[in-house]
Amino acid sequence: MKQRIYLDNSATTRVDDLVLEAMLPCFQEKFGNASSVHLFGQEARTVVEEARRSVAELIGADPREVVFTSGGTEADNWALWGMIRGGRGNHIITTAIEHPAILETCKVVESQGAEVTRVSVDSSGRVDPQAIREAIRENTTLISVMHANNETGVIQPIEEISGIARERGIVFHTDAVQSVGKIPVDVDRLGVDLLSLSGHKIHGPKGIGVLYIRKGTRIAPFMTGGSHERKRRAGTENVPAIVGLGAAARLARERLPEMGRRIAELRDHIENEASDRINGVRVNGLEPRLPNITNLSFERLEGEAAVIAMDLDGVAVSTGSACSSGSLEPSHVLMAMGLRPEVVQSSLRFSLCFHNTVQEVDCMLQTLQKVVGRLRKLAKRVSG
Amino acid sequence: MKQRIYLDNSATTRVDDLVLEAMLPCFQEKFGNASSVHLFGQEARTVVEEARRSVAELIGADPREVVFTSGGTEADNWALWGMIRGGRGNHIITTAIEHPAILETCKVVESQGAEVTRVSVDSSGRVDPQAIREAIRENTTLISVMHANNETGVIQPIEEISGIARERGIVFHTDAVQSVGKIPVDVDRLGVDLLSLSGHKIHGPKGIGVLYIRKGTRIAPFMTGGSHERKRRAGTENVPAIVGLGAAARLARERLPEMGRRIAELRDHIENEASDRINGVRVNGLEPRLPNITNLSFERLEGEAAVIAMDLDGVAVSTGSACSSGSLEPSHVLMAMGLRPEVVQSSLRFSLCFHNTVQEVDCMLQTLQKVVGRLRKLAKRVSG
Repeated sequence: MKQRIYLDNSATTRVDDLVLEAMLPCFQEKFGNASSVHLFGQEARTVVEEARRSVAELIGADPREVVFTSGGTEADNWALWGMIRGGRGNHIITTAIEHPAILETCKVVESQGAEVTRVSVDSSGRVDPQAIREAIRENTTLISVMHANNETGVIQPIEEISGIARERGIVFHTDAVQSVGKIPVDVDRLGVDLLSLSGHKIHGPKGIGVLYIRKGTRIAPFMTGGSHERKRRAGTENVPAIVGLGAAARLARERLPEMGRRIAELRDHIENEASDRINGVRVNGLEPRLPNITNLSFERLEGEAAVIAMDLDGVAVSTGSACSSGSLEPSHVLMAMGLRPEVVQSSLRFSLCFHNTVQEVDCMLQTLQKVVGRLRKLAKRVSG
Repeated sequence: MKQRIYLDNSATTRVDDLVLEAMLPCFQEKFGNASSVHLFGQEARTVVEEARRSVAELIGADPREVVFTSGGTEADNWALWGMIRGGRGNHIITTAIEHPAILETCKVVESQGAEVTRVSVDSSGRVDPQAIREAIRENTTLISVMHANNETGVIQPIEEISGIARERGIVFHTDAVQSVGKIPVDVDRLGVDLLSLSGHKIHGPKGIGVLYIRKGTRIAPFMTGGSHERKRRAGTENVPAIVGLGAAARLARERLPEMGRRIAELRDHIENEASDRINGVRVNGLEPRLPNITNLSFERLEGEAAVIAMDLDGVAVSTGSACSSGSLEPSHVLMAMGLRPEVVQSSLRFSLCFHNTVQEVDCMLQTLQKVVGRLRKLAKRVSG
């Protein structure tokens, strides 16, 4: 079988060997309900709390500030609903380039009577902190700005924005699903009150995430029922997934230096080689960016067609978020950056993980060059 | 090491060998995001849809009516919020013996302006359908009555209640987390519009459940974001857990006859032997009941102390729901049945699974007899 190359790590990652190894005993040996009083329960409780400490260490938090959720989407939903129900106002400020878990949920809270201001970005893909400041009202209960964008990798000026929020006594949330494990994330340095992260973006399992809740932050629960997670998030603790996330957090922490060096070099290699070999390539988004994502537009290319053609050659890339796939809408992120619709539709996202090699990237570049050439020729013939 | 005996299967179950085997390839081989366009995504999509069919078959549904959630708690939260936001009224009818995922969420929807009527049960633990009928108002949007109680195993008259709901054009939900896989559950025969089930109660993984939504039922999403699950439930599909639930559903279907025969006999054996060997034993809840749960009260016994003492002897049982453990409140289920608080506090739940043996049960009975004797003697000495 032909080698298959996976460069869609912002959609999801392969579970790491060490993560799976950590999870395995939790399915059949330490299988108890972590809320049970007996030994089966206590064994499960022990490994859950160990994992909580690992996650806390990765983001510089106190373990008691780490609450496990079913993933990034739940953490984002919780941040919004929790502040609308438990906060002091009903106005939310966010940006035009957030993940759908924020943007779609904003539409729902609006339909239920809340108010939402969406601040846009400039052509570099960055939010202007002053625009956030100007959007603040008396009844603003939450500012939610993602740490790094999932389509472009552009890192937002979180410290500046959180400073503004703190000045005004407004709770600040960041969706750090893409940045955790890719760049150093420290809740104190970032100055955030709430932070979402997800297991499956860092070689952990799917179905597990975290909402970090800074001590003292008043937020209503999202999922209610039993008294799990110190009454903050109901539902039987997903022990194997929590343990897997703990292991993934430990690995991510160890690998941060290499992520910032070798993986950033691989990304630069993609950008340099693609621009050298192919005409009309443009990088979407300016520094500071994540080390593992690049978003490129190719003149006169249909992005979706390129994804399918590359897939037939065994190379997995994407046009953007997997969460929006199937929708024929052009990327809201690139549109917000002011790109023309035809440029947006011609863009591809390449997202790397710790395990990707230069051989894989070179192989992808060959396929890319071939596919772009072929599709452009085809388009010319059709339009001619 | 001493043999350890697990009779707390209503709290959670051990993942079955065949379930784990089905899940394993999804962590590292078929690890794609099921919403991705490329082959990695399509491989994940294929196994997700196969699992959906298995779950649908177990409950007599169409696969399109099966929506995966992070568990029973999310499914229950969704049923309530989804009908309050998407339904035609703001009054909910439920019962006093529901799981906290329903009862606690009812409190929250009340605090947000909805109205809730809680119908009680008689001493047998059963809801009177006429009491439900009488609670119906013009603005009733949902009736939610659990299929079988998690503490007593008592099966509720769902067909009768759903008939009343249908007559009045009201959406009917049942929390079938404890009944699925224990007795035949058919959504058409039960006449339900919404049904919650959970993976980890049937030897599937934790962190996965389902909300069955009958075709044509208008319900708002609970978790919003990407367009997963045909826009009904956002969040990256938890592929390994979904596949595990599919395998668990197939096993549960095969094992239903034995569950109703051998496991019911084991339960009767517990009740008969406990009553024969120990004074002052009372069975809480009358038929019809699940085959795998029995709830017994023991005169002059402190239930919590007995759980701990039995645990020290390697036997895991519980006083009731793990979801309420840590709370010192007496069981709301047994209280609703009219038991005196001291009787409630003296009760233990024994819950069996397909894998339990008569040897295990006999060993548990020996421990139970010893523990009850010792604790009663101790109590007498203290009070004397």
